[in-house]
Amino acid sequence: MTTLDDLLNPRSIAIVGASDDPTRIGGRPLSHMIRQRFAGPVYPVNPKRDRVQGLQAYPSLAEIPDGIDFALIAVPAPLVAEQVRLAAARGAKTALIFSSGFAEAGAEGARLQDEVAAAGRAGGIRVLGPNCLGLFNAEAGFYPTFSSTIDRATPVPGGISIASQSGAYGSHIYMASHARGLGIRYWVTTGNEVDVSTPEVIRLLAEHDDVHTIMAYAESVKDGPALVEALETARANRKPVVMMKVGRSAVGAAAASSHTASLAGEDAVYDAVIRQHGAWRARSTEEMLDLAYAARPRIYPAGRRLGLVTISGGAGVLMADVAEAEGLDVAPMPEQSQAEMRAILPFAAPRNPVDVTAQLFNDLSLIPRFTRTMLDRGGYDGIIGFWTSVAGSPILGRPLLAHLTETMADYPDRLFLHVMLAPEEIRAAYEAAGFPCFEDPSRAVIAMGLLMRFAEAFAAGRPEAPPLPAPADLGAGPLGEREAKRLLAAAGLPMVPDRLATTPEEAAAAARALGGPVAIKLASPDIAHKTEIGGVALGIEAPAAAAAAHERIVAAARLARPEARVAGTLVSPMVSGGVECLLGARNDPVFGPVVAFGLGGIFAEVLRDVSLRRAPFGPAVAREMIAGLKGAALLAGARGQPPADLAALAATISRFSAFAAANAHQIESVEMNPLRALPEGCLALDALIIRREDPA
Amino acid sequence: MTTLDDLLNPRSIAIVGASDDPTRIGGRPLSHMIRQRFAGPVYPVNPKRDRVQGLQAYPSLAEIPDGIDFALIAVPAPLVAEQVRLAAARGAKTALIFSSGFAEAGAEGARLQDEVAAAGRAGGIRVLGPNCLGLFNAEAGFYPTFSSTIDRATPVPGGISIASQSGAYGSHIYMASHARGLGIRYWVTTGNEVDVSTPEVIRLLAEHDDVHTIMAYAESVKDGPALVEALETARANRKPVVMMKVGRSAVGAAAASSHTASLAGEDAVYDAVIRQHGAWRARSTEEMLDLAYAARPRIYPAGRRLGLVTISGGAGVLMADVAEAEGLDVAPMPEQSQAEMRAILPFAAPRNPVDVTAQLFNDLSLIPRFTRTMLDRGGYDGIIGFWTSVAGSPILGRPLLAHLTETMADYPDRLFLHVMLAPEEIRAAYEAAGFPCFEDPSRAVIAMGLLMRFAEAFAAGRPEAPPLPAPADLGAGPLGEREAKRLLAAAGLPMVPDRLATTPEEAAAAARALGGPVAIKLASPDIAHKTEIGGVALGIEAPAAAAAAHERIVAAARLARPEARVAGTLVSPMVSGGVECLLGARNDPVFGPVVAFGLGGIFAEVLRDVSLRRAPFGPAVAREMIAGLKGAALLAGARGQPPADLAALAATISRFSAFAAANAHQIESVEMNPLRALPEGCLALDALIIRREDPA
Repeated sequence: MTTLDDLLNPRSIAIVGASDDPTRIGGRPLSHMIRQRFAGPVYPVNPKRDRVQGLQAYPSLAEIPDGIDFALIAVPAPLVAEQVRLAAARGAKTALIFSSGFAEAGAEGARLQDEVAAAGRAGGIRVLGPNCLGLFNAEAGFYPTFSSTIDRATPVPGGISIASQSGAYGSHIYMASHARGLGIRYWVTTGNEVDVSTPEVIRLLAEHDDVHTIMAYAESVKDGPALVEALETARANRKPVVMMKVGRSAVGAAAASSHTASLAGEDAVYDAVIRQHGAWRARSTEEMLDLAYAARPRIYPAGRRLGLVTISGGAGVLMADVAEAEGLDVAPMPEQSQAEMRAILPFAAPRNPVDVTAQLFNDLSLIPRFTRTMLDRGGYDGIIGFWTSVAGSPILGRPLLAHLTETMADYPDRLFLHVMLAPEEIRAAYEAAGFPCFEDPSRAVIAMGLLMRFAEAFAAGRPEAPPLPAPADLGAGPLGEREAKRLLAAAGLPMVPDRLATTPEEAAAAARALGGPVAIKLASPDIAHKTEIGGVALGIEAPAAAAAAHERIVAAARLARPEARVAGTLVSPMVSGGVECLLGARNDPVFGPVVAFGLGGIFAEVLRDVSLRRAPFGPAVAREMIAGLKGAALLAGARGQPPADLAALAATISRFSAFAAANAHQIESVEMNPLRALPEGCLALDALIIRREDPA
Repeated sequence: MTTLDDLLNPRSIAIVGASDDPTRIGGRPLSHMIRQRFAGPVYPVNPKRDRVQGLQAYPSLAEIPDGIDFALIAVPAPLVAEQVRLAAARGAKTALIFSSGFAEAGAEGARLQDEVAAAGRAGGIRVLGPNCLGLFNAEAGFYPTFSSTIDRATPVPGGISIASQSGAYGSHIYMASHARGLGIRYWVTTGNEVDVSTPEVIRLLAEHDDVHTIMAYAESVKDGPALVEALETARANRKPVVMMKVGRSAVGAAAASSHTASLAGEDAVYDAVIRQHGAWRARSTEEMLDLAYAARPRIYPAGRRLGLVTISGGAGVLMADVAEAEGLDVAPMPEQSQAEMRAILPFAAPRNPVDVTAQLFNDLSLIPRFTRTMLDRGGYDGIIGFWTSVAGSPILGRPLLAHLTETMADYPDRLFLHVMLAPEEIRAAYEAAGFPCFEDPSRAVIAMGLLMRFAEAFAAGRPEAPPLPAPADLGAGPLGEREAKRLLAAAGLPMVPDRLATTPEEAAAAARALGGPVAIKLASPDIAHKTEIGGVALGIEAPAAAAAAHERIVAAARLARPEARVAGTLVSPMVSGGVECLLGARNDPVFGPVVAFGLGGIFAEVLRDVSLRRAPFGPAVAREMIAGLKGAALLAGARGQPPADLAALAATISRFSAFAAANAHQIESVEMNPLRALPEGCLALDALIIRREDPA
């Protein structure tokens, strides 16, 4: 446990700015805790009253006779820092600050916020907030929050917990969960996050045995590595984290100058990192709640084979459509088993979806028989049953449940979700038996798919990071193509060979030595965009033509950029065939070095078809990146081309990620572009390294 | 009105196979109608009883003394045709057949089904079913259905209606609607559709004044043009049709041999046609219900400008994310108005999303003031308010509603949707005031977007079809490239010119006459795939080289296909520049000629990036096709290229659609591929026409 644990389970609490009026900000938490019977002492601090809501009040933190574990501060912003100091002096481990008027309110507020932060650090006290709605621990009756939702919806026990940067949105998730009967154990809002952050709270929740599912909401994350650690802690403890990160549409002003940086906005990095570390980025609030709901039985199906059993052929097709879109495998039943099922029920469509037809009304025993056949012979990891209002029928609903309960007791590792329209009490009976129920068939399929993905993520565990090379010696001078290529080649990355020609004669000699057509490019550490100034000649065959090209290129460079240093030209063999790719890395301000891989040309530029991952990572993750491209078929040998050597490509991407990670302190961005994926191996034809302005 | 109107509003009904047991198939409809007080006479037909469920029974249809409007038939399949004949003889306009055991049960059933169809045609009686769950007209108490859902959920009045091929799924939609308080006026299931089809029912509903929204479900449509007419009828009457068409994942075995046919499975044609004719293909059942629910105020916002007002900044961002993904315009407030709003509330974020913050708790009058400013100055067509549980608060919920009601009375053409968590009675009050309410913010945005799309579809009206050319004279011989080019050029389509060379000398002369590099291709009506046999030479400069290429090509053709007729070669100028596209059309078995337009090469083959539309259509629709491509940016001048001449391209696509429509009776598929989209105009370099085997 981190020391942050005192956040959720303090022994005592002081409320600075406590109000006798239970509808006021300083009154609500006190009122909640009195009603919810918080076991520890609660000390209202209010210099104007002897008693507050029936409890003895104190004029200041200093005058509370006993020790304080937790200080709730609800006084105007300019007075907060002093209260934090006092709380620290009285031994409090946490200060929770409701007050607004800090960084969100302008420059003066930002100054006050810095002061609060300094007071917390100096006093060795953790600070939650300011400008936050507080938290609760439902089991302990600990309610340091002024959210009015608690009055209208008293938390019920359960293993789901919420970490939310936004108070209002956090309340919304809480209320919506409550309305669905989802028990919320811990609820923490972090507001301005002067100290305690959403990632830290996620990690704290992941470490608590009484939490089994975590819903999180964030607008921004300051400390990317902390989020990674939090997600990996949850993964290690087999707890799904479903995270709503808003801001997909904000294009993000990451104004890095390199080409790679422009390919994917910051938001796409969140997408990649959340997935890479075994969590799920919710596409909607509803999806987040659906996942938490469907995870209640804590069954994570071991594979993606989905069985569908239905009383409506159409609903079966509908669910199969969704399953395919979500990447699930609606595998058919074995032929032999289909024949057996048809022998039981001639009208059945037993392939999968398995349509038991309206015959179900006459013979409920079809369900256990067919279910067992599907699980035993079809080997499905999860099953969804479409019963619509039949399950809600007063005659059939409960007998069907009895059959299902008895059957599934023999398959504790398989999940059975149900689509039904039923009165509340029947639905509750299904849920109590471990059967989540949905009204909408699509949502059932999506929830099943998410649980299957979590099972995969749990099984995969934290990806092993490749060993990092020693940081490269960049030297002091500018980094041209030649230097970039040399550095990458030295790190074991496949670079087309080249020869420096300082005279036309050397260019001719190089062309002769390399044989076949060559590319000749300006060698200047000061000129990055060579094509634009006439600094590139391709497909040069004869040595004499190479000499002429050298002269032309050097002259063009002198003309265009008289001040630039010109070393001569680089002569390298033309590489034909293969698929043009790009491989780049840049330092994301939140997550550090992030690798982008995509197909070259229109794929990257027009279609933004690029996979991202946080560096470093191994070849297995690189394989996922390749497979995740929309244009992946091109690498598999589309259009009559031989397939690319994916093993070599993945190894290169992984090694490149290690290079980027090892040099993140001194390199802002690095590219191998174009990178040709060849039938055997792969080869970069150009390279670019941009140094960090402020080496870390 | 079509004569089908008697389907929904008959004056009398006979039930053949009526049962005294109200839980049996032949007993349920009778029981429903007795309880729901159907006004017309109901005649049970049961040879074994004098009375059925208290009504006088008749031994056969023949012995009912009065006329019959509607015959419900629930007897075993082999007996059905005879009953249809009898019903027709007694003057019934409709026969509804519950019985199964027809085409769905194999060959013998199919034979019986044909017999039923013949009986219906011969007797001039419309047949609904067989193998269907029946229908209802809630207003009239007319319940010829054996669905048990009616017992558990008695329909409430309302203007939403349902047409469903599937009985079980139709019941599910009905029950889910009922659970949401949506009044269903008519509900019709069509089963095997031996006669009455889903499209016909949609059209019938679209013609009924008491229907304002139509939900439809189909697994397959036999008569595509009927669906088109139904959708256009609904559009003309400003009624949204939201259609669930399942089978997206079934790749479809359209085994047409031409290249175009392989680009988009049949399912994509449904997608295109439903959208082209102003309806919406539901992505989920939930979305279908959400649309029907949100359409209840019958306000279709005139544009896509969406205002967002929220008490949670995060929820505002979340909704903006969804809005962007759905193609809505979250336009900012004018600067001046932002300043005014900030003057009212300094902490407000007034850009749009407009965040009124928790200040709302203290001053509800912010809402009418901000709302008016947003509507007057921001000009939003619709607004979504995120109130979460605040609207559900016993103190704030109703005063907020009063403010909203008063304000929106001045803006009858703007729609205001609400995101809230509230007790049923508060929610009902909002709904009664014309304010649909959602729990999930994403769903609110999506529903708003659908209503905006319907407004556009209603305003656009039925697209004008271009005039069709006279059908082409295909002649009797085979259609090679040369003939295909000639036919398309004759129809005014831009084709690269070519010259037929029958000798090497003629090839040289043609190259000389054309000047510049030429392409030389085998001219043989019997060989479609020229490249594979060495029948193409590109970029030939010198006349002598042209002569040699001619000789080589003709020799290669004789070697590869000695039996093929070889006319010589076609010599045409090389066309450089522009963007390679493909344009094709084929006869869809359901919808007739369908045009496919896409970018060439990897876009079409690897990414399946193709737009489809039913032919014929005008240039405006062609523009939509172009804009709908993922790679559309390439035509707009990406990668430093000049933009393509989109007006010329759209005119060509439209004209091509007219050609395809005019020749659908004799042409199976036609292609202009590649079609180069040039900075000025466009030009096809090759063409292919495949004749219909069975000219219609």
